Amino acid sequence: MPETLSTSSSDPRADQYVIGVDYGTLSGRAVVVRVRDGRELGSAVHEYPHAVVTDSLPEDTAGAESNGHASRLPGEWALQVPNDYREVLRRAVPAAVADAGIDPAAVVGIATDFTACTMVPVKADGTPLNELPGFATRPHAYVKLWRHHAAQGQADRINKLAADRGEDWLPRYGGLISSEWEFAKGLQLLEEDPEAYAAMDHWVEAADWIVWQLCGRYVRNACTAGYKGIYQDGRYPSEDFLAALNPDFKDFVSSKLEHTFGRLGDAAGTLTAEAAAWTGLPEGIAVAVGNVDAHVTAPAAKAVDSGQLVAIMGTSTCHVMNGTELREVPGMCGAVDGGIVPGLWGYEAGQSGVGDIFGWFTKYGVPPEYHQAARDAGLGIHEYLTELASRQAIGEHGLIALDWHSGNRSVLVDHELSGIVVGQTLATRPEDTYRALLEATAFGTRTIVDAFRDAGVPVKEFIVAGGLLKNKLLMQIYADATGLQLSTIGSEQGPALGSAIHAAVAAGAYADIREAAAAMGAEPGEVYTPIPENVAAYDELFQEYKVLHDYFGRGSNDVMHRLKAIQRKAARTDLPGTGNPPAPAVEVSA
Amino acid sequence: MPETLSTSSSDPRADQYVIGVDYGTLSGRAVVVRVRDGRELGSAVHEYPHAVVTDSLPEDTAGAESNGHASRLPGEWALQVPNDYREVLRRAVPAAVADAGIDPAAVVGIATDFTACTMVPVKADGTPLNELPGFATRPHAYVKLWRHHAAQGQADRINKLAADRGEDWLPRYGGLISSEWEFAKGLQLLEEDPEAYAAMDHWVEAADWIVWQLCGRYVRNACTAGYKGIYQDGRYPSEDFLAALNPDFKDFVSSKLEHTFGRLGDAAGTLTAEAAAWTGLPEGIAVAVGNVDAHVTAPAAKAVDSGQLVAIMGTSTCHVMNGTELREVPGMCGAVDGGIVPGLWGYEAGQSGVGDIFGWFTKYGVPPEYHQAARDAGLGIHEYLTELASRQAIGEHGLIALDWHSGNRSVLVDHELSGIVVGQTLATRPEDTYRALLEATAFGTRTIVDAFRDAGVPVKEFIVAGGLLKNKLLMQIYADATGLQLSTIGSEQGPALGSAIHAAVAAGAYADIREAAAAMGAEPGEVYTPIPENVAAYDELFQEYKVLHDYFGRGSNDVMHRLKAIQRKAARTDLPGTGNPPAPAVEVSA
Repeated sequence: MPETLSTSSSDPRADQYVIGVDYGTLSGRAVVVRVRDGRELGSAVHEYPHAVVTDSLPEDTAGAESNGHASRLPGEWALQVPNDYREVLRRAVPAAVADAGIDPAAVVGIATDFTACTMVPVKADGTPLNELPGFATRPHAYVKLWRHHAAQGQADRINKLAADRGEDWLPRYGGLISSEWEFAKGLQLLEEDPEAYAAMDHWVEAADWIVWQLCGRYVRNACTAGYKGIYQDGRYPSEDFLAALNPDFKDFVSSKLEHTFGRLGDAAGTLTAEAAAWTGLPEGIAVAVGNVDAHVTAPAAKAVDSGQLVAIMGTSTCHVMNGTELREVPGMCGAVDGGIVPGLWGYEAGQSGVGDIFGWFTKYGVPPEYHQAARDAGLGIHEYLTELASRQAIGEHGLIALDWHSGNRSVLVDHELSGIVVGQTLATRPEDTYRALLEATAFGTRTIVDAFRDAGVPVKEFIVAGGLLKNKLLMQIYADATGLQLSTIGSEQGPALGSAIHAAVAAGAYADIREAAAAMGAEPGEVYTPIPENVAAYDELFQEYKVLHDYFGRGSNDVMHRLKAIQRKAARTDLPGTGNPPAPAVEVSA
Repeated sequence: MPETLSTSSSDPRADQYVIGVDYGTLSGRAVVVRVRDGRELGSAVHEYPHAVVTDSLPEDTAGAESNGHASRLPGEWALQVPNDYREVLRRAVPAAVADAGIDPAAVVGIATDFTACTMVPVKADGTPLNELPGFATRPHAYVKLWRHHAAQGQADRINKLAADRGEDWLPRYGGLISSEWEFAKGLQLLEEDPEAYAAMDHWVEAADWIVWQLCGRYVRNACTAGYKGIYQDGRYPSEDFLAALNPDFKDFVSSKLEHTFGRLGDAAGTLTAEAAAWTGLPEGIAVAVGNVDAHVTAPAAKAVDSGQLVAIMGTSTCHVMNGTELREVPGMCGAVDGGIVPGLWGYEAGQSGVGDIFGWFTKYGVPPEYHQAARDAGLGIHEYLTELASRQAIGEHGLIALDWHSGNRSVLVDHELSGIVVGQTLATRPEDTYRALLEATAFGTRTIVDAFRDAGVPVKEFIVAGGLLKNKLLMQIYADATGLQLSTIGSEQGPALGSAIHAAVAAGAYADIREAAAAMGAEPGEVYTPIPENVAAYDELFQEYKVLHDYFGRGSNDVMHRLKAIQRKAARTDLPGTGNPPAPAVEVSA
């Protein structure tokens, strides 16, 4: 939309703009924001051409060297192609500037946020391994997306060893390091493809890699270093510890993680000529230190005080909240000093599958008649199922589900867990299961809220950002299931706005993130108030959820772990270095 | 197909034929069989126009009296319309005779078999209640199909009272009376619609009602009386017992069950002029005593000796086996003296959902792309999913399911149980879940085989009849999961052939069922041998099934029962007399 100036202010920031770029799981979104008031003037999205690589390596990158096998990656794998991220800079940024109708010369800074922990193996100059000759057919040469869950064995060993040794960093992560994080994924890479590990000079968060692409410097952001990189009190895990995991892992920190640090809101550098050519932005403008999509949303929602829980609900959900004191919350993802804003302890928790689960269900579990009826009604399939589900009384479907289709990030921190739906009968219809899945994720959030409360970090407010806030039924279910008043962020692009706020700070337009958030953050959108009889009805169902949660999640019945082990044993894969030796074929004869 | 006589025999039976009519859950099938050798010469199927009534009462029967509400029946209800059964006589029988190309005058007898326990409330002349003025809008005036599972509360009370009083008939049914059976369904009718109960003169098995339609006499078959009607050692449950259940139920046996008995294989009477006009068959031919689809299949498979387990696999599975001695097997459906053939103890067990579960999944859980791909490949959706599933190694899908979507008939005898799938992830595809459901039903069969073995009734042979034997993957899974050699019946219409064998006996062509089975029964079809490595792989998965089976089915976690209770409380239904008072509407506001 064209910018209409209606200000009489003489503020020099009136004509300054910043770009925020939000790298999600499937696409990147660029937003143009006015510095003085946070007004969003234009945006554009670019879908990653390769999306998430879960089945077989992409042919356009691996094709020339392919061995002719269209082998399927094991179920827990999730890779991405780094050049897809550059494409967002080339396409979405200029498109957003054009959409805003502004002069690119008026842009003073750019900042990015990224999914995390998403890791890129690179050479000394930042070139991803998969772009090197001979590496395109090696799964371990690609980006390991946050939801790559194949390093659970390594995570288990890290956790056991850290507990046995009493490592003082372990309680900062609720007692458990996730298989999604940097150390588990790095150890998997070492152990399953030592050649790729040896060829790698840096093991880089994608959040920092994209900043490197923009400003030509590798600067590590304090947020992911703390939350994902086990960087606490000024140090990483010791060489002793790493050597005990695997002798060849001893020098992991010194040989693969070397970097300089950057505080959130600082500039990592300035836009290079090459990146200026990609984006159409002026060379030399400020490039902010990298950040994580979830954490960057807090300032966009003006939620930078203690007790304000921000849930960024998309394919997965990340919960971030500031606190004045350090508390150890069992099963949370991390507590990091200055992890969200300098000066407060930043707490993070998460649900590894939310919108992903709904999307999986609509893609693979809904029959043709429903898709047709949705089209006939002019609705998307999510909207149609939501419409049907919203006619039901609570409990009418007779189902209870566990939302672990992508594992559990909090409070169990176990990605070998899996999904379950209890109560299906011949009378169960797709809208029933859909609603049960919506509710399961709400119960997952309640489990996190309860864990914070029980550890002395009470949640006072619940603010939702991310794509799922559009679903009013879902929002009311969350308010009813948690018993908390819920408000939605007033921006449709919270992370990108949050990045823009960081860009403004990096460009020197504001003194710090708090000041920028106050000026540029979005006002609340809609407010959902818990309905007492619904709260009571969900309390009853939540008790059932808890019993199943503990039965399947806390060791009473480790069937989910055993099924994964059986699955790995049975999977017939001949991909090099995926950790699964080919299983003998089992004939089914008749 | 036209009959080609190629016999030089002077046997007077050479030119005699019998008709077997098999009443299934969705259709009735008539078969024309040659008396001397069991050759099947022609057949025809008629689908019930109203199929299974589960959502709302049919408009063509209830329309004139409808109150304008298209109210949904509760989830456990399953009704049928009796006139659909007469239609089979009017349409399928003449069509089968035409298909066989025989002279109808050469038909000497007709016999029928039916789903059970399927109950018809009738007036003294056999007229079903729903055909009376004023009753078409009352759900309780209709046939309660075998899989009507809304009488679990009544069944629970019957079981508790019988256990408390030490009723000697209880162990004959594995210690549990099913909610599918005559007494539970009759008590539900009394308690939920006392007016309909009062108007009813006879509470009749559909197996006997259809014979009544054919020969004008109400003759009760010994099979259903024993298996479904708690008739043991020459008597029904006592008035004392019935009065303790409900004072108004005291005279249930004397006022609603009065009848004469007929042994299996005997003639109940002869074809009336009216039924001759419907069918085109000669008036006065023998009409055999009614029978149950499963039990009548044993002679068709020549499986009339002890230890030969016949599984009739269709929408549900019924297992029947003869034994020389009476043993009490926990959770079996019943042991009845002469229940399959006179002179042996007939054992019955069952799985209340098998093909029904697969059908439900393909109807409600498979996306458009799969249906399109099936069409493109010229396959049905079941064949297509089976083809995809058959490429997998055992355990590769990472799933384990419980096959209780229609409750559990053996060995838990609990229709408040429900289905469950454990292990779904974002990588789970429809063929994975489909295969897990196939396997779950195989584990259900193994649970039954193990219960027989543990009680001293070993299973020596496993013979499969019914529509599902066409699925070779399913058959091999059953052989591997049970470790038993499996053979399929050599007839595609086992129950109808079994009925024809009974018709031949009733017409006096053979001395008894054994002699007729030897002459007319089908030779085995295909044979499936367990593959040792598959047996080992399924042993491992079966242990997981057992743990979940006992956890959800034996009281460790009664979540399934509680979900049904919550569901009933929440369901907003205003149908008269369905046992569910309307619940207050719960608003979902935003």
